[in-house]
Amino acid sequence: VPATKQDIQSAEELRRQISSGEWTGHTSGLLPGRQQANLAIIPRDAALDFAIFCARNPKACPVIAVSDPGDPMIRFGTTVADIRSCISKYRVWQDGTLVAEPGDIGSHWRDDSVAFLLGCSFTFESALENAGIEFRTKTGEPAVYVTNVPTVSAGVFSGPLVVSMRPIKRNFVARAVEITGRYPKGHGAPVHIGNPDYLGIDLAHPDFGPQPDLADDDVPVFWACGVTPQAAIERAGLTYAIAHFPSSMFVFDHHVDEDPSALVQF
Amino acid sequence: VPATKQDIQSAEELRRQISSGEWTGHTSGLLPGRQQANLAIIPRDAALDFAIFCARNPKACPVIAVSDPGDPMIRFGTTVADIRSCISKYRVWQDGTLVAEPGDIGSHWRDDSVAFLLGCSFTFESALENAGIEFRTKTGEPAVYVTNVPTVSAGVFSGPLVVSMRPIKRNFVARAVEITGRYPKGHGAPVHIGNPDYLGIDLAHPDFGPQPDLADDDVPVFWACGVTPQAAIERAGLTYAIAHFPSSMFVFDHHVDEDPSALVQF
Repeated sequence: VPATKQDIQSAEELRRQISSGEWTGHTSGLLPGRQQANLAIIPRDAALDFAIFCARNPKACPVIAVSDPGDPMIRFGTTVADIRSCISKYRVWQDGTLVAEPGDIGSHWRDDSVAFLLGCSFTFESALENAGIEFRTKTGEPAVYVTNVPTVSAGVFSGPLVVSMRPIKRNFVARAVEITGRYPKGHGAPVHIGNPDYLGIDLAHPDFGPQPDLADDDVPVFWACGVTPQAAIERAGLTYAIAHFPSSMFVFDHHVDEDPSALVQF
Repeated sequence: VPATKQDIQSAEELRRQISSGEWTGHTSGLLPGRQQANLAIIPRDAALDFAIFCARNPKACPVIAVSDPGDPMIRFGTTVADIRSCISKYRVWQDGTLVAEPGDIGSHWRDDSVAFLLGCSFTFESALENAGIEFRTKTGEPAVYVTNVPTVSAGVFSGPLVVSMRPIKRNFVARAVEITGRYPKGHGAPVHIGNPDYLGIDLAHPDFGPQPDLADDDVPVFWACGVTPQAAIERAGLTYAIAHFPSSMFVFDHHVDEDPSALVQF
């Protein structure tokens, strides 16, 4: 009998079920309120540039945790996880080409691999829901657009800002800004509200995700998106790189309103 | 005629006067509200570890900007500055030994140098002042203590958390937490309030700065301090490292309530 959402009580249990192959699905909607994260694994010789790229583009690339180079164990707050097997599906590139989408990366992890876990917008979606703010399109996924706005480059990493768009009822827009602004590790406040032209976007043609469905009293609201670092990684021409498969995120133990790195242990 | 505080109207002018030798003093109290920063220059082969150390200890080491490796130019928002001469006094270590405290580092910068600018508590001090919260000791400097609380290590970087202490009147303590919590790039909210024993501190014996002067209705409030990364750098045994001289900070163009990295340019 396959596991269901109802069977999974904790992030630790979810990661265990993923590692054992009991859970192979995506993590959207799982364990609401737990911090989920994008994964980027980079060779050590490019990892400093990537860390600088993240520092220069914190709304798109908010760093939550980084592994020791070569060490596949993630330790952050109470979370202890082997990054090689705790995500349900990965994407592996070699010399810029996508070569595999495996369920574990035991054979792809190297002695020089550095794992970056970057915040994702699932963080603020639960906060918006808790505040009674509707934002979902029909399919539950936001439309995602590659803008004509450049990121701030660092070494081999550059490329366009990628944004997610959620339609928000006009009277909830300011509140949605306030709430998402509380989650800098979940992309924070929007990068723009209202006019897709300013970002070089044609709303009717998303680059990823479903075509949006805006009502007359909806305002399109644009947040920096975790696809931004993936786009920069793809352009960088690295000897290899590994990321999560879209919507198959890393799930931390901690709640999005916690921040273990802000707590000093004594 | 030497420049005075009153003559300096902008951060750009201050950095220019420092570069030309017209201003040789410290930056405490200069250009209130402008973002000031700690400097740490690290050899490239240790810079990834240092970036990870900062990510793991964001309250002590909030990264504002990082140079490209080997490039002495800092570019952040409107700030453009040559890091080799825009600080009034530096400290230079070689193989763990302090070897010089020069007024510029043109002869010490190397092809593999990486400059990190980390937020400092001058940021929130102006915000506390604006809110009418008194906190200064007699000399205007906080007492600084090396605690018995460890940082989260990364590679060669480890060591104790260092904190600054400001006495706050008992009825202002919660407000001081609220206000400083708004400035994560200025060490954010305190790490502890009230009992120095919990941090292994003897209040009467600061490691740096003046002996504190607490009134009966003062509460000692402890913030993570920018001396923390300097202590970790000294322990790391690097071939070389460079930092600012205490209180001679880097001064950005932007106000502490701005965050150029949170603004996407389009």
